[in-house]
Amino acid sequence: MEEDSDDKTPVKKVRSNTAKSVQSPAKAVDIGEVENSTEEGEKMFEWLIHPVKKEKFFSELWEKKPLLVKRHLESYNDGWFSTEDLTKILHENDIQFGRNLDVTTYEGGQRETHNPPGRAYPAVVWDYYQNGCSVRLLNPQTYSQGVWRLCSSLQEYFSSMVGANIYLTPPGTQGFAPHYDDIEAFVLQLEGKKHWKLYSPRNDAEKLPRFSSDNFRQEEIGEAILDVTLEPGDLLYFPRGTIHQASALPDTHSLHITVSTCQRNTWGDLMEKLVPAALTMAFSEDVEFRQALPRDYLDYMGLANADLDDPRRKAFLGTVQSLLARLVNYVPVDAGVDQKAVEFMHDCLPPVFTRKERACSIYGCRTRLERGRVVGSVDLKTSTSVKLVRKGAARLVMEGEQVFLYHVLENARVYHGAELQPIEIPPDAAPAVEYLMHSYPAYVTIDSFPLDLQQDKVDLAMLMFEKGIIIAQEPVSVDN
Amino acid sequence: MEEDSDDKTPVKKVRSNTAKSVQSPAKAVDIGEVENSTEEGEKMFEWLIHPVKKEKFFSELWEKKPLLVKRHLESYNDGWFSTEDLTKILHENDIQFGRNLDVTTYEGGQRETHNPPGRAYPAVVWDYYQNGCSVRLLNPQTYSQGVWRLCSSLQEYFSSMVGANIYLTPPGTQGFAPHYDDIEAFVLQLEGKKHWKLYSPRNDAEKLPRFSSDNFRQEEIGEAILDVTLEPGDLLYFPRGTIHQASALPDTHSLHITVSTCQRNTWGDLMEKLVPAALTMAFSEDVEFRQALPRDYLDYMGLANADLDDPRRKAFLGTVQSLLARLVNYVPVDAGVDQKAVEFMHDCLPPVFTRKERACSIYGCRTRLERGRVVGSVDLKTSTSVKLVRKGAARLVMEGEQVFLYHVLENARVYHGAELQPIEIPPDAAPAVEYLMHSYPAYVTIDSFPLDLQQDKVDLAMLMFEKGIIIAQEPVSVDN
Amino acid sequence: MEEDSDDKTPVKKVRSNTAKSVQSPAKAVDIGEVENSTEEGEKMFEWLIHPVKKEKFFSELWEKKPLLVKRHLESYNDGWFSTEDLTKILHENDIQFGRNLDVTTYEGGQRETHNPPGRAYPAVVWDYYQNGCSVRLLNPQTYSQGVWRLCSSLQEYFSSMVGANIYLTPPGTQGFAPHYDDIEAFVLQLEGKKHWKLYSPRNDAEKLPRFSSDNFRQEEIGEAILDVTLEPGDLLYFPRGTIHQASALPDTHSLHITVSTCQRNTWGDLMEKLVPAALTMAFSEDVEFRQALPRDYLDYMGLANADLDDPRRKAFLGTVQSLLARLVNYVPVDAGVDQKAVEFMHDCLPPVFTRKERACSIYGCRTRLERGRVVGSVDLKTSTSVKLVRKGAARLVMEGEQVFLYHVLENARVYHGAELQPIEIPPDAAPAVEYLMHSYPAYVTIDSFPLDLQQDKVDLAMLMFEKGIIIAQEPVSVDN
Amino acid sequence: MEEDSDDKTPVKKVRSNTAKSVQSPAKAVDIGEVENSTEEGEKMFEWLIHPVKKEKFFSELWEKKPLLVKRHLESYNDGWFSTEDLTKILHENDIQFGRNLDVTTYEGGQRETHNPPGRAYPAVVWDYYQNGCSVRLLNPQTYSQGVWRLCSSLQEYFSSMVGANIYLTPPGTQGFAPHYDDIEAFVLQLEGKKHWKLYSPRNDAEKLPRFSSDNFRQEEIGEAILDVTLEPGDLLYFPRGTIHQASALPDTHSLHITVSTCQRNTWGDLMEKLVPAALTMAFSEDVEFRQALPRDYLDYMGLANADLDDPRRKAFLGTVQSLLARLVNYVPVDAGVDQKAVEFMHDCLPPVFTRKERACSIYGCRTRLERGRVVGSVDLKTSTSVKLVRKGAARLVMEGEQVFLYHVLENARVYHGAELQPIEIPPDAAPAVEYLMHSYPAYVTIDSFPLDLQQDKVDLAMLMFEKGIIIAQEPVSVDN
Repeated sequence: MEEDSDDKTPVKKVRSNTAKSVQSPAKAVDIGEVENSTEEGEKMFEWLIHPVKKEKFFSELWEKKPLLVKRHLESYNDGWFSTEDLTKILHENDIQFGRNLDVTTYEGGQRETHNPPGRAYPAVVWDYYQNGCSVRLLNPQTYSQGVWRLCSSLQEYFSSMVGANIYLTPPGTQGFAPHYDDIEAFVLQLEGKKHWKLYSPRNDAEKLPRFSSDNFRQEEIGEAILDVTLEPGDLLYFPRGTIHQASALPDTHSLHITVSTCQRNTWGDLMEKLVPAALTMAFSEDVEFRQALPRDYLDYMGLANADLDDPRRKAFLGTVQSLLARLVNYVPVDAGVDQKAVEFMHDCLPPVFTRKERACSIYGCRTRLERGRVVGSVDLKTSTSVKLVRKGAARLVMEGEQVFLYHVLENARVYHGAELQPIEIPPDAAPAVEYLMHSYPAYVTIDSFPLDLQQDKVDLAMLMFEKGIIIAQEPVSVDN
Repeated sequence: MEEDSDDKTPVKKVRSNTAKSVQSPAKAVDIGEVENSTEEGEKMFEWLIHPVKKEKFFSELWEKKPLLVKRHLESYNDGWFSTEDLTKILHENDIQFGRNLDVTTYEGGQRETHNPPGRAYPAVVWDYYQNGCSVRLLNPQTYSQGVWRLCSSLQEYFSSMVGANIYLTPPGTQGFAPHYDDIEAFVLQLEGKKHWKLYSPRNDAEKLPRFSSDNFRQEEIGEAILDVTLEPGDLLYFPRGTIHQASALPDTHSLHITVSTCQRNTWGDLMEKLVPAALTMAFSEDVEFRQALPRDYLDYMGLANADLDDPRRKAFLGTVQSLLARLVNYVPVDAGVDQKAVEFMHDCLPPVFTRKERACSIYGCRTRLERGRVVGSVDLKTSTSVKLVRKGAARLVMEGEQVFLYHVLENARVYHGAELQPIEIPPDAAPAVEYLMHSYPAYVTIDSFPLDLQQDKVDLAMLMFEKGIIIAQEPVSVDN
Repeated sequence: MEEDSDDKTPVKKVRSNTAKSVQSPAKAVDIGEVENSTEEGEKMFEWLIHPVKKEKFFSELWEKKPLLVKRHLESYNDGWFSTEDLTKILHENDIQFGRNLDVTTYEGGQRETHNPPGRAYPAVVWDYYQNGCSVRLLNPQTYSQGVWRLCSSLQEYFSSMVGANIYLTPPGTQGFAPHYDDIEAFVLQLEGKKHWKLYSPRNDAEKLPRFSSDNFRQEEIGEAILDVTLEPGDLLYFPRGTIHQASALPDTHSLHITVSTCQRNTWGDLMEKLVPAALTMAFSEDVEFRQALPRDYLDYMGLANADLDDPRRKAFLGTVQSLLARLVNYVPVDAGVDQKAVEFMHDCLPPVFTRKERACSIYGCRTRLERGRVVGSVDLKTSTSVKLVRKGAARLVMEGEQVFLYHVLENARVYHGAELQPIEIPPDAAPAVEYLMHSYPAYVTIDSFPLDLQQDKVDLAMLMFEKGIIIAQEPVSVDN
Repeated sequence: MEEDSDDKTPVKKVRSNTAKSVQSPAKAVDIGEVENSTEEGEKMFEWLIHPVKKEKFFSELWEKKPLLVKRHLESYNDGWFSTEDLTKILHENDIQFGRNLDVTTYEGGQRETHNPPGRAYPAVVWDYYQNGCSVRLLNPQTYSQGVWRLCSSLQEYFSSMVGANIYLTPPGTQGFAPHYDDIEAFVLQLEGKKHWKLYSPRNDAEKLPRFSSDNFRQEEIGEAILDVTLEPGDLLYFPRGTIHQASALPDTHSLHITVSTCQRNTWGDLMEKLVPAALTMAFSEDVEFRQALPRDYLDYMGLANADLDDPRRKAFLGTVQSLLARLVNYVPVDAGVDQKAVEFMHDCLPPVFTRKERACSIYGCRTRLERGRVVGSVDLKTSTSVKLVRKGAARLVMEGEQVFLYHVLENARVYHGAELQPIEIPPDAAPAVEYLMHSYPAYVTIDSFPLDLQQDKVDLAMLMFEKGIIIAQEPVSVDN
């Protein structure tokens, strides 16, 4: 493996001469057998940035500079998505222009969207394509099992929503104007070739920005810091705020998937939850927050008095600072993190079950009515061994006196297609749920739950099993 | 065929001894080959009420009395839905308690709903069932191809939304309290046996009611006018307003489907559209509507003056009547009907395409990208023969100066799962669309469209073809 | 009295040579002694249009043509309002630019509003005036006792809200562009001279219009039908829809008041209340309104079928007409009138009490606390004689099973400054209230109320007395 | 002057034996001649707590303990309000039950409100009173010139809204249940005698509370810390959170006014403005706030992990603390104070003008129209001397690039009866406005404004003069 030695360049370029030993997703990321979602996420990410090491990536590149991996292995990204998949998806799903798919052009500095109303049948989409339109499919994870797998593994790794878009570009065209986004982007070239140009954020305020930019004119963005052609198997990573534009080479179309993460997932976003909560708590617990302002403060405070040299100003500012400093005693960090976690869970994709997981879960229970008789009922025993279906599938949250178990099992593959449906848990059952969480990925018997009554153990297990939150080690639906 | 001779009974009972000649749906309603949706709807309805004749049904029973058809042919209703289908649907779809499915009991005069939150997995549903709960699946047409076919055929026949519910009842139980509904109900017994009791509307105001009733107590509903046990293959029809209750026999479960129609589809509903529109028009066109009320009308009008014997009252009432009579000149009947038609289209299921229809429609176009080249493009020629996919699939509506083609092709199988997306049509293309409508079910060449330019003919055809509104006689997607 | 003989002119001009015998408002309309609000309103109106007779006015002019009365008696309109009053009002009240007063210009075909934000102090308003701005004071009745009296008398006469605006125009200027209004206008010239031009409605649709027009350009409005100069004491009436513009003569300012009425007070407005109510009633009482539409009506009805020669169309249209005709049986005319009456009462000014009325009403009760003791309590006896304070001050309305007495006594002089506060009346007290209404303007003893118990009579009287709805013949507050 | 020596008692009792030298408000607070609103507020407050000294009050009592001043001078509080004033106000104003006045009882532990709908005429109110109801008049400052003066002077002293309520209680009754309020209360006994009982806050959380309490039961409030009878001339102060109840002595009614201040006027309320603003600024200026949260933070943070001994937890908490500490760099204290000041101004009463102030202000300009000519125009010259009408009447606020002058002159005496109407000031005129503010209470010539052009000086003066914000030293309206 060769790496550019000059660490001062704002871009990380990696030349991967070990490429041959890397395999296409199906093999490289053999996660079918992995029974630990934490490990699965990690392996998926390692595959993604191979041959760069995770530690190096996070210390040197993440949120800092672009990374280009030229793999010289055309098949490396195979299996995630293809032009054929796109036709199939359009054929089989109610893909709507504007909502799920856009057809766009960028010509002569002009960016246009050409969406007609209604469903995007393949014949219609390919007609636009033939006329030079780029095609962007939003949230392919909703329709593609592979992309679903990719995103749901990585979301567990990043503790942040992972999304995706598919971009198909006709030969010799560009579909989008230069701009920057508010997400960390991983571009995986799938078919054809695309010429990319990246540019540094224009100033400090646009570094790691909270919101995506408008379209820029070419003269606004300065010199490119990276100018490169992606070929199948290649990866391009760049941090949010990196201005970019890309066009298909004249002689070939281009298909890539952009995997994105870390949108609105910053310290500041957490602070926005913590700080008002801290203030509310300080208000109710610290009487100094409830004392009246000085009787005469309007005489020396305010912008019109900003230049006043008055000892009362100093005292006033001193009090503000001391109260602010005191806020730290009231910052409910863990509660704020849980609130953030619940928001993340609302954004999450549901887990992709393996065949075995399905068989051992509520999904796999073959309960049915046969000649009027129920057969194949679920039969959880205290001896049954269970575990959470995924490390990140559920989270305990206190709301006042109540304890709720939030989980992603009712989530839809459509983004925000369902609301979270937390389950209320008896407070004394909470330790049993935490026990399950800390035991992951090991199976534990229901009998080992830290609860007094056997019936309570089975009831709690049943409650979670019926939502798909836990799975058993063996199928539990029996023909009675 | 035997019929009860006593026409004074408020119920029509039919004993079908010609049953053997009747076939199960798949064969009896061989609509796979039918190329005319009007005919298809008619045949479906004939099958439904067989051996009663349509004319007799509409003149003697419809909106008047119940009809019971004992078919003595267990298989007559086969194929539409089974307990097995229910398990399969629960298994494969995100059926949510409360939204898509209810588990209920009616015991000791007490009606209860037992829905937990979240998804209704088979194992969970069957557990409730085993504990004596009835299961009601709402809108099975969303999940069952057969029921979709049944309802979408009948909706064209009734020009009114046709819905359905599935009811599964454990042996010896009743799931619902006595009540009446606001729809015409066709009950098809599918499995097991159910004991039905019907009661007349309690008074004139409850005949053909606009809204369903609350639950009744047994002592509120009088004597049953029909007391009968339904067996597989049987049909029970009753008009809205008919109070009913039913329980599974002690030794068997019961499964039936209720097909419903004519909810809020009355003359009065139409009048509610027509009358305010007529008034608005009269206001702007008839100056007498804009003349001031008599200076002193408050002295002799109003409830406190209702008994006044004053000639001015008579004159006043006379003017009201004459203005009301004049409204008739302004009633926009056709526009009101179109408004009603659009509402109906919003309620409609999309058509079920046959294999051949699919092949000859936009759905069947195998347009795709092969090695970067678009192949299999749609190729409509003036010589191509086309027709509407269904008689009721589209409707031209004037809105001000604009002409819109409303259609049901973007509709979802989920009730109101999508908004109508009308297409604007150039006003001079409207006759060509009407020509297509009036030609149905015949195919006509694009060349025969009443338009001047060949290109306009093809463009109009393309516009409708790309939405699925028209289909060609032969597949039109060619490998170029 | 001279009148123009040519009745074909669209304007009625009156030359009043009997003017000398007419007195200024204070004397001409000596309503201070009038104890009957019906008579008072009538006299006020007679004074307004003097020397034209009411009957002639309503049969020949009202809602038909303009009327000009040149009185040649400068003082005829004296006493209602003056420039001095305006200064005083600005001085003493929180008159806000934009909300209560506008300063405007119309120059070179351009209409402009120059309102600054905030309160219109006299010094500021007169500064605008001096710079050529017209001044329009909205709702002077809120600030001027005289205008309040004028409007509240006339509102009882018209059974319709009567409003007013004051217009002050600097010499040689015009403040407003040509336009028409949605009210019947009575212009009383108070000071200076103004040159008016009136124009006929441009077409039938603009006759008696429901809404005021935008500003017109001079070339849009045709030839003036009246071109006249108003002098103090003159009256100009014109129906809504009459286009008008006016400018002060070059050598003098102009001050006039426009009294307006009959906005949205037409048969059509009443029909808008009656017709939906009739339909709702027909729906619930007439089963034919609840019957389903014909199964196949969409095939032959709708605009696309408007030219179809199909007997089913005729039948369908026939049914619509017959249902419409049947509506007449369900039109709740009196209830609709009461609803309109309540809306009118919401718009009403409260009555102007005379000194005597005040003394005999709740307003005049000198109840007070003296050395901790309540003195001067209200003492209604069965022998006390009472009457409604005004014929139109209250109205009984049935709402479901309840009876409410709506009244204008809580109304504010600010337009819609207060909500109606109806009093619930025991249903068996309603006849006693009606008795009071029909007895008006005579006083009746409380003892004569058609109620069984003496206490109920006194309680009912007290209820109305405490709201100011009834007054006694003599003061009733006694020093106990 | 005697004071209780025992400073440990939670109540401050003052026996004022110098009472004879104290005069009733009209004389004691001779503020008619005061030309400095700061001084006026100070004198009013000194009068209020006399003979206690301000410094002592604020250091020992304010927000800490109750203060009782027994003045033994019945007339000390005379002139602010009397029972007679109440009758007069009810007579002359549209006082509405529920909105402006309440009639209440507290008997047998039961608190009830007896408000009928509609206007509170004296006869009706005194009837309730005679039946044992207490009468509470809200915001008497709206109707009483004296109370307006009292509150508007004190609001300038406290830099916080000052409100008032009037309480009249029949002999031997109590109108309200024990409770605490969210304001600092100054009770001035006006007539009769009332027996008060005060109780300490029940716990730390109820000290200086943000919101008033519900009604307490007698058994919830512990032992009274003060048990005393107020007589005319006496004062009782107690901090918010002090539980209290009071009843009129058996042989006399009681009338008092409660003057209140410092509602939601605390350091915490200011922090609620500062902290989110600081966070927004930090987000945009400090990239560390925009960096992603640690990839794995959900594994060790959150309530379920609160007891985890993981170095990553410490690091995470450390980052939160360091970011919080950094907020201090972004806290916009002066801007937040200005925002608070604007809210205060919205709450403010408008100033009570003295006769002389009125004469020298826009209110006193006798501009009028005489025979069509404007006379008495405002004539501001550069030589005219002007000053702000009150120290606290206006405030400069930056909003983005714009400068606005907020002022209380458009405020209504009705609480929140008008919205603030700030005037936009050219940024380079801001120093001239600040110059005026800092010059207060001295008059300065318009010529001395720090502006370049004479016209700009006069224009700025005119802008403020026309809103009543500045007054001249002599009347400026001249007869031209």
